[in-house]
Amino acid sequence: MSSHFSLQGFFHPASVAIIGAKDDPNSVGGRPIFYMRRYGYTGRIYPVNPKRVHVQQLTCFPNLNSLPEQPDLVIIAVSAERALTAVEDAVRAGAKSIIMMSSGFGETGEAGRALEQKIIRMAQAAGVPLIGPNAQGIANFSNGAIANFSTMFMEIEPEDGPIAIVSQSGAASVMPYALLRQRGIGARYLAATGNDADITSSELLLAVLEDPEIKLVLLYLESIRETTALASAAEKARRKGVAIVALKSGTSSRGISAASSHTGALATEDAVVDAYFRRHGIYRVSDISELAAAAELYLSGRSPGKGRVLTMSHSGAVGVVCADAAEQMGMDFADLSDDTVCGLRDIMPAFGAIHNPLDLTAGLLSDGSLFGRALELLCDDSNIDVIHIGMPVAGPGYDVNGFAQAARAASDRSGKLILVSGPQLSVLDHFKTQGIPTYQGDVEALGLLHQYIQHHRLLQQQIPQAVTVTELAMPATTLPCLSEADSLKLMTDLGIPVVQHARCHDLDRALTAFSQIEGKVVLKACSPEIPHKSEYNLVWLGIESQEALVEAFNACHIKLRQLGFPADVIVARQESGRREIVLGARRDPVFGPVVLIGDGGKYLEVLKDYLLLTPPFTAVEVLDALQQLRIWPILQGVRGDQPANLQRLCEAAVQLGNSLIATPAIESVDLNPVLIRHDGELVVLDALVTRAPEPTNSDN
Amino acid sequence: MSSHFSLQGFFHPASVAIIGAKDDPNSVGGRPIFYMRRYGYTGRIYPVNPKRVHVQQLTCFPNLNSLPEQPDLVIIAVSAERALTAVEDAVRAGAKSIIMMSSGFGETGEAGRALEQKIIRMAQAAGVPLIGPNAQGIANFSNGAIANFSTMFMEIEPEDGPIAIVSQSGAASVMPYALLRQRGIGARYLAATGNDADITSSELLLAVLEDPEIKLVLLYLESIRETTALASAAEKARRKGVAIVALKSGTSSRGISAASSHTGALATEDAVVDAYFRRHGIYRVSDISELAAAAELYLSGRSPGKGRVLTMSHSGAVGVVCADAAEQMGMDFADLSDDTVCGLRDIMPAFGAIHNPLDLTAGLLSDGSLFGRALELLCDDSNIDVIHIGMPVAGPGYDVNGFAQAARAASDRSGKLILVSGPQLSVLDHFKTQGIPTYQGDVEALGLLHQYIQHHRLLQQQIPQAVTVTELAMPATTLPCLSEADSLKLMTDLGIPVVQHARCHDLDRALTAFSQIEGKVVLKACSPEIPHKSEYNLVWLGIESQEALVEAFNACHIKLRQLGFPADVIVARQESGRREIVLGARRDPVFGPVVLIGDGGKYLEVLKDYLLLTPPFTAVEVLDALQQLRIWPILQGVRGDQPANLQRLCEAAVQLGNSLIATPAIESVDLNPVLIRHDGELVVLDALVTRAPEPTNSDN
Repeated sequence: MSSHFSLQGFFHPASVAIIGAKDDPNSVGGRPIFYMRRYGYTGRIYPVNPKRVHVQQLTCFPNLNSLPEQPDLVIIAVSAERALTAVEDAVRAGAKSIIMMSSGFGETGEAGRALEQKIIRMAQAAGVPLIGPNAQGIANFSNGAIANFSTMFMEIEPEDGPIAIVSQSGAASVMPYALLRQRGIGARYLAATGNDADITSSELLLAVLEDPEIKLVLLYLESIRETTALASAAEKARRKGVAIVALKSGTSSRGISAASSHTGALATEDAVVDAYFRRHGIYRVSDISELAAAAELYLSGRSPGKGRVLTMSHSGAVGVVCADAAEQMGMDFADLSDDTVCGLRDIMPAFGAIHNPLDLTAGLLSDGSLFGRALELLCDDSNIDVIHIGMPVAGPGYDVNGFAQAARAASDRSGKLILVSGPQLSVLDHFKTQGIPTYQGDVEALGLLHQYIQHHRLLQQQIPQAVTVTELAMPATTLPCLSEADSLKLMTDLGIPVVQHARCHDLDRALTAFSQIEGKVVLKACSPEIPHKSEYNLVWLGIESQEALVEAFNACHIKLRQLGFPADVIVARQESGRREIVLGARRDPVFGPVVLIGDGGKYLEVLKDYLLLTPPFTAVEVLDALQQLRIWPILQGVRGDQPANLQRLCEAAVQLGNSLIATPAIESVDLNPVLIRHDGELVVLDALVTRAPEPTNSDN
Repeated sequence: MSSHFSLQGFFHPASVAIIGAKDDPNSVGGRPIFYMRRYGYTGRIYPVNPKRVHVQQLTCFPNLNSLPEQPDLVIIAVSAERALTAVEDAVRAGAKSIIMMSSGFGETGEAGRALEQKIIRMAQAAGVPLIGPNAQGIANFSNGAIANFSTMFMEIEPEDGPIAIVSQSGAASVMPYALLRQRGIGARYLAATGNDADITSSELLLAVLEDPEIKLVLLYLESIRETTALASAAEKARRKGVAIVALKSGTSSRGISAASSHTGALATEDAVVDAYFRRHGIYRVSDISELAAAAELYLSGRSPGKGRVLTMSHSGAVGVVCADAAEQMGMDFADLSDDTVCGLRDIMPAFGAIHNPLDLTAGLLSDGSLFGRALELLCDDSNIDVIHIGMPVAGPGYDVNGFAQAARAASDRSGKLILVSGPQLSVLDHFKTQGIPTYQGDVEALGLLHQYIQHHRLLQQQIPQAVTVTELAMPATTLPCLSEADSLKLMTDLGIPVVQHARCHDLDRALTAFSQIEGKVVLKACSPEIPHKSEYNLVWLGIESQEALVEAFNACHIKLRQLGFPADVIVARQESGRREIVLGARRDPVFGPVVLIGDGGKYLEVLKDYLLLTPPFTAVEVLDALQQLRIWPILQGVRGDQPANLQRLCEAAVQLGNSLIATPAIESVDLNPVLIRHDGELVVLDALVTRAPEPTNSDN
């Protein structure tokens, strides 16, 4: 990995040498030369090929040593066998950066991986950043530096624009490019990094964000090995108001197997990616075509404000369908202000109900001025942030060009985002010409608007800085698990309410505890070596009398002796309540600490009603996220229930997350169940803290 | 409502008269004339307008009496005030059918509704079927009979094709038309029925299904007032192998309010529509553009077989993304047979893993024949039903036309469905020319394929004929609810297992019951007038002794006396188990009996993990549907649980549905909770049957 400042050389080389240069513009070694000449690269191009004198009308050099200058960028387009020598040559010739298009390395298996590592070590030792191997390469369409062999630029002419595409896959880099270009949108940077063996896609992401003209980045990732560069890039993007839309693939077992990735802990792994992206303001999509789909909205230069949307159409059906879809998506449909309703009533006296969705009816055909007058009123309404116009049909009698100009004027004057949907491409073109985002499907348009609004919200989150807990004092043992008593103690240290309990080494202490606890008690074994007590039948419930307690203690004692453990037990109050929830935290090897909150109990993994958050986060963010849970109404209190103490729950989640940040010795915390009592208070009934493995020297 | 046979006259009129005929082809009264002349209608066109001698170069008649013949179809395009007279005239002139384009009727309020009813009564009395009022009209593009005033046919030329569009909304009829035509697909019928005051959209649906060349019907509905015609149409379509794709809008509160429909019981109402459509093989979509989206698949003439899909691409990224999406959708991704793997290994010796998704890699560029050879092998594999080809990029070096021909040949030879996705429209065009369905998005293509496969499965379901229960014997009271004992008795009659219990009028009987039941018992009031006992605190749990029973009985007795009810109680065994589920049935005023199964208990409405089915259905269908529930793994048995007796559960659901069909006196059955005991057996703990209101004479 290299400092990203040096990576600008990939996009702004003063000279480019191509080892393995070819005459054929449709070969790997021919394409970059062809593209740079065709698309206006003004630097020096040095074809290198000992077998040729000229390549594509340019002077060809037998080797890098014979060049008239030290090359800025060296493209290696030779076979894997010759690639090592080529890198040696490039380093020796003083190349400032290398793009290795050659394949046959890490992607093919062990032998390839070994060769790849050898090459990377050589480049890194020389301090020369290398993209690849197996890279389709990069392109800068603002200066014609197209060190890229994709077929796509033969088919679809580039145009400069405020978008950067960064991808681990060549295909996934040019597919959004093609979709954008066919919609008339330009892109400036395109980087397809292949094996990410030295410079990673995240580092290139960081590099393209240096350019103040980039407004939108499309990112395709198949694997994420570390997150430092990605987190820095996300932070830089947020600061600069640049949106990152990302596709992280390999979420399914077949997908992962196809991506030659690991299996195991599948769903959770992917949910961690979700949580991480959300935390860092990256919007995640699930198809390559979706990467580009909302580009018009991102490039509109209009904020979606608070995201309150109005749909206006001259078809009632379109309005109804859009209202249905908005509710389905959880979109905020605006309520018209009284002034707007009166104003609309004035200009549309004969109309029925005036509400959102607004139906201009066929009246639009007899009086086209309705369109602009209604739009002006809507744009003046401070309850409305975004106006979506459904144009189901237009033709003779409809002044579509006038409508489009009115939409542009209303948007310009008010600064509000306006978008249009309708089936007729000819109608959409008028609006497109006015810079208004257009889509063929009404619900498609609303879905992409929803993305834009959600993404805007993500980017406005402030990532909290300070961690409010100090490092927790871990008990001095080396076992992987803490005992339940020790685990509960740590939670108490964090201020999380735990069940009234006592750790008891003998019967006398147990009897004292029983006398001090009101109501029934539970007795359970307490050993760091038996984290899952119930599997050993070491839990006794519903103890109401001293006799029953003695009986349970003795039974537990005997079992523990048989297993070879001391007679430690916990005597705890037996609580009853409304619902069992779960709170947990663990350390993901790539993404770091993750906190889990959700519906708890035995069926946690089956019902999957939980959410993940990556700390640090605030209690407000937890509260916001909790509303996505299916048990959210139960937390709020329904059918006569007391509301749960949500503040306490959110704070507990914050504390758990911070405790993992502050305490490297904790690997995971599992609080399941946390009971919501009938009075709404929370109480942790069972806690298990595990210890992070000691780092071994070989890892450092 | 009229017999649908007479409705053919709307689509095949020998003559069309237009009351309110206009010269201006962009007026309501001018468009049909213009369209019929432009698009080749060969019947007689009679403009009617007392103020004109000619209309659009045709002889104009002052009134219907002056026509040289009785008109087949009369279009009424005058104002609401003149519409009544126009209908009178049409009836008197011997019109065989009427399309009323005039608006200002039921859609405007009470006064309009009254006028509308007057008109409809007149037409019905004369036996003349009427479409409208407020109808955009119908069109038959096979004979040019375009009794329709939409702007759209000015903009986008019609072409005949195997599709019919039937819609209550004008806009929603021409939007899918526009999308289809822009993709080069023709449609034959288009019907926009407006207020559905006489002839309904469902009746027109039934009529277009008479045409053996129609293969696909797109249906847009905002309200469904009765289901007879819709059910007949769905059955006819299923018999003839015609697919119906429908959008029923007005699912949200705003949507319903915009559609001026009723509110209340919202989510459930919409879930009933879902269940009804599924039962009748109608596929439901949620956007107008989605109505047309999968048309290429429906028209492909290829069955999706068992729905086992393979994705092949020359980009690994596309394969991974598709595998992810397939798993997400619950699509069946095919496993390659060993023969196919060996065959592919032979033609692609240098490749890595051979699996689904199949990665042809950049090897396709060096050997284009790979494409066709791989396709032939895949088409021969009996494990594969459908082949999806991702074409992320193509251009020089790729023989796209050859690929398209190979795909066509492989599909023709094997009869298997092949579809293609990719961003480049120029690439897709080659496949389109070969009749291969194409889409720009990979996941979009898989999503539409998923629809096609799911729809195919729906259409293959056999609706069971016979109802296997006879009418249940209802107790002879007139109260709206049955007592719990009577309700449990009916369930026992149906063969559904209920909790061991006894109805007790006095303490002696209660004590006897207690002595006969093992373990703890529950005592609860049993009165048809107190259906919700727990709200009155009339339930006593955990009774373990005779003393406790006496105490509970007396307390209940006192409370019941205070409320003025007899001392009837139920003494029942107190069961314990794993999970409470719900079984219910009710009679929807439009759609008839509906059965509900799902996660039960107090939070039923909050957690919403239930499904609805419209009887009659089979136990196999219930089992299939249960797998969509989130509690499905709990029903199957996880984490050491015994599996639930699913056969018994499914049979109970079947019986419940059939009992409502066979017993008109039952309005609803609510079994909540039904306990899944630890041994997996089901037992109904609480039952409430309500009685259907006696039909009043005025309803008949």
